[in-house]
Amino acid sequence: MKPCFFAVIFFLVFNVSAQTDAEIFKSIYSTSLTNGKSYHWLDYLSNQIGGRLSGSLNAEKAVAYTKEELELLGLDKVWLQPVMVPKWVRGGKEYAFIETASGLTSTVNICALGGSIATPIGGLKAQIVEVKSIEALKTLGKSAVSGKIVFFNGAMQADLIQTFEAYSGCSEQRYAGAMEAGKLGAVGVIVRSLNLRLDDFPHTGSMTYGDLPNSQRIPSAAISTNDAEKLSSMLALDKNIKLFFNQTCQQLQDVQSYNVIGEITGSQFPNEYIIVGGHLDSWDLGDGSHDDGAGTVQSMEVLRLLKESDIKPKRSIRVVLFMNEENGLRGATKYAEIAKQKGENHIFSLESDSGGFTPRGFDFQSDDAFMTKVEGWKSLFKPYLIHYFEKGYSGADVAPLKTDSNVCAGLRPDSQRYFDHHHSDNDLFEHVNKRELELGAATMASLIYLVDKYGI
Amino acid sequence: MKPCFFAVIFFLVFNVSAQTDAEIFKSIYSTSLTNGKSYHWLDYLSNQIGGRLSGSLNAEKAVAYTKEELELLGLDKVWLQPVMVPKWVRGGKEYAFIETASGLTSTVNICALGGSIATPIGGLKAQIVEVKSIEALKTLGKSAVSGKIVFFNGAMQADLIQTFEAYSGCSEQRYAGAMEAGKLGAVGVIVRSLNLRLDDFPHTGSMTYGDLPNSQRIPSAAISTNDAEKLSSMLALDKNIKLFFNQTCQQLQDVQSYNVIGEITGSQFPNEYIIVGGHLDSWDLGDGSHDDGAGTVQSMEVLRLLKESDIKPKRSIRVVLFMNEENGLRGATKYAEIAKQKGENHIFSLESDSGGFTPRGFDFQSDDAFMTKVEGWKSLFKPYLIHYFEKGYSGADVAPLKTDSNVCAGLRPDSQRYFDHHHSDNDLFEHVNKRELELGAATMASLIYLVDKYGI
Repeated sequence: MKPCFFAVIFFLVFNVSAQTDAEIFKSIYSTSLTNGKSYHWLDYLSNQIGGRLSGSLNAEKAVAYTKEELELLGLDKVWLQPVMVPKWVRGGKEYAFIETASGLTSTVNICALGGSIATPIGGLKAQIVEVKSIEALKTLGKSAVSGKIVFFNGAMQADLIQTFEAYSGCSEQRYAGAMEAGKLGAVGVIVRSLNLRLDDFPHTGSMTYGDLPNSQRIPSAAISTNDAEKLSSMLALDKNIKLFFNQTCQQLQDVQSYNVIGEITGSQFPNEYIIVGGHLDSWDLGDGSHDDGAGTVQSMEVLRLLKESDIKPKRSIRVVLFMNEENGLRGATKYAEIAKQKGENHIFSLESDSGGFTPRGFDFQSDDAFMTKVEGWKSLFKPYLIHYFEKGYSGADVAPLKTDSNVCAGLRPDSQRYFDHHHSDNDLFEHVNKRELELGAATMASLIYLVDKYGI
Repeated sequence: MKPCFFAVIFFLVFNVSAQTDAEIFKSIYSTSLTNGKSYHWLDYLSNQIGGRLSGSLNAEKAVAYTKEELELLGLDKVWLQPVMVPKWVRGGKEYAFIETASGLTSTVNICALGGSIATPIGGLKAQIVEVKSIEALKTLGKSAVSGKIVFFNGAMQADLIQTFEAYSGCSEQRYAGAMEAGKLGAVGVIVRSLNLRLDDFPHTGSMTYGDLPNSQRIPSAAISTNDAEKLSSMLALDKNIKLFFNQTCQQLQDVQSYNVIGEITGSQFPNEYIIVGGHLDSWDLGDGSHDDGAGTVQSMEVLRLLKESDIKPKRSIRVVLFMNEENGLRGATKYAEIAKQKGENHIFSLESDSGGFTPRGFDFQSDDAFMTKVEGWKSLFKPYLIHYFEKGYSGADVAPLKTDSNVCAGLRPDSQRYFDHHHSDNDLFEHVNKRELELGAATMASLIYLVDKYGI
């Protein structure tokens, strides 16, 4: 009878364990969908605070608000981690028009790129040279470019299924376009917005001058996709048309800001850290709901969901709301630096910074052993339609924590609509669906639960 | 050397075949995303025609428009299949308010349910009895219900991941609520809108009186979820409040309409039919973009994508735009009846009627042998993030074609936002994302290609 008895015990233990994970998943998802806080938090961040660029008053309001809300959750610790951040300000609303040889004008929608200098006072008017990439610009050379406004009109590739690939495929023109055009004597740069849709929103984003001397630094702005099409069509008819644009943005001195951190201290391995985070700053256009209000509130919700589901983690679980992802990554750099100084063992770091859309799964920066482990977890996620578990890049804020022995991961929501909103006036609370946001938070919490329980 | 030679040949043949399917997928997806027609067609259906309830002038415009567009595709045949359809008209805009004992009034947003009778001229005012389901109504019995307005306030279950399950879970109150309340002597019915979100849109949908005598038929309307919450809260404070509502809808005589059908005749097995379809009618609220403008234009696009990708199908591929799915299913019934009369062998029927959102996969009404076949196709779909291939219900329009030996299937897009729009003024073109619509069309075309090539 004994072998049979042990078999029964084994069966029970095995089953209880399997059932428990599924039940905990159910509790996490159900709590998020029926009694979640993420949407409420996002409403406040988006509609009571709004766009919160590093160094702005709004960014500081967001620091204070999220710290206060984390404190209300009854975590073991909540604190601010100081970090100096750049402060770039947009100034007045930008203005631009196309002017034909006969003096007719047609306004176009532009916005300064983050980090750009202003145009000369009163604006800048010049002929335009259109290129599709930095490579094409270099081929043209100085004689064709000097004294002109360079119009980078590379379009995101519509037939790439993962829209972040399409984004990476042409974001270089935005980031380095002004630097390269400045070297060739251009007087300004206009970049087609990184948007797969044809619409009227200009999309900002970070740009760099590298170590270019001030004399070669030229102003740089994004133009809406509709107006990029218009400008390109008009240029095809007449190379001599001119573009006028005016912007008054400037880079000020660095200012004090903070990463916001909350922790549930581990019961068995308090010195092993699992973190979940998004970035608290956003661009100043729109209200930053998708980028990255969603990731911020989902990360906060992960810790709340663990508590609500009575999970007492073995390892220390931290939520980290990173400051200054958009134009400097200072918060992420600081967090990784301090973690290293203190010798904190960050075994797993999860980031949500791809919008608040229906979650599909995760990308993992990890070795094969961990991927094998993940393979065994897939069936738990299947009822929640989470199917995507691949090796890939995690995210800008957690990647600095990557070592040879740990794992970094990124939530992967549906990406089809993301660039309709990204970095523009169209990134608004009304475009985040409550259920989709909540499903993302639950999906993250479920993964964190498994990583805490089973390790990496 | 010979075995080696044959191995090479086998390898080449095997590889060419595998590559060809992957290449054709790539061509289909790329064409849909970069040179698609579906979004353009949807724009016309939604913005130039609009809501197109069976029997309306708009429905006839939609018949004429889609027939004309299919003719432009150069299919082998395009024709109209006559079918008599019900004609229900909404009349003037509905009006409703809550009245407290002290005579204070508060307006609420309602809309008549499709098929409902009007209120008495000048409207109807009565006390309210709130229930969560038909079962709860029956438990209350005649004495509690007689002379009152029954308020069905069953909410869709938020923690079901598949929102169509949440819909099925409480759609009975909308469909049969007035019939059951009428039997118990109620004077009217108000039903909480089938919407997972709290907002101000009332959502219509079909209802029935069964074979209830005219004397027991009572008017029935949907109320927005926000107003359902308000009404319920006010009732909790005071059972004696009353509801007034006025609607002037009526059921007229059946009228002539049509299914719109186009065909590419098969090169090898012309008598084996593969169909792809959606329904051309919609409710009169909104413009019917998701339900089912999306399915209509995606189905048309499938045939265009096959032609654009130079696929000459072995079997006959038909697009069928069904009339009257919403309030009668007459088009589907007629199509199945004629197919049976003519002895047409419909081996596979695919429906898209779950909105124009990012596609996730398909449900199949099929035997295990076909599911095994599908298992072998999964890797082709993986690069397009199509992962969901399950046994399940196909759709209302193609299910009548199901036999023991064929397969019916339904496209399964992401369902999280669907009921924000369904059957309401919020079902609008602006809520359909071009890429998501186009990915759905390509996913359908890719499946149809495989079914034609490899059979079921």
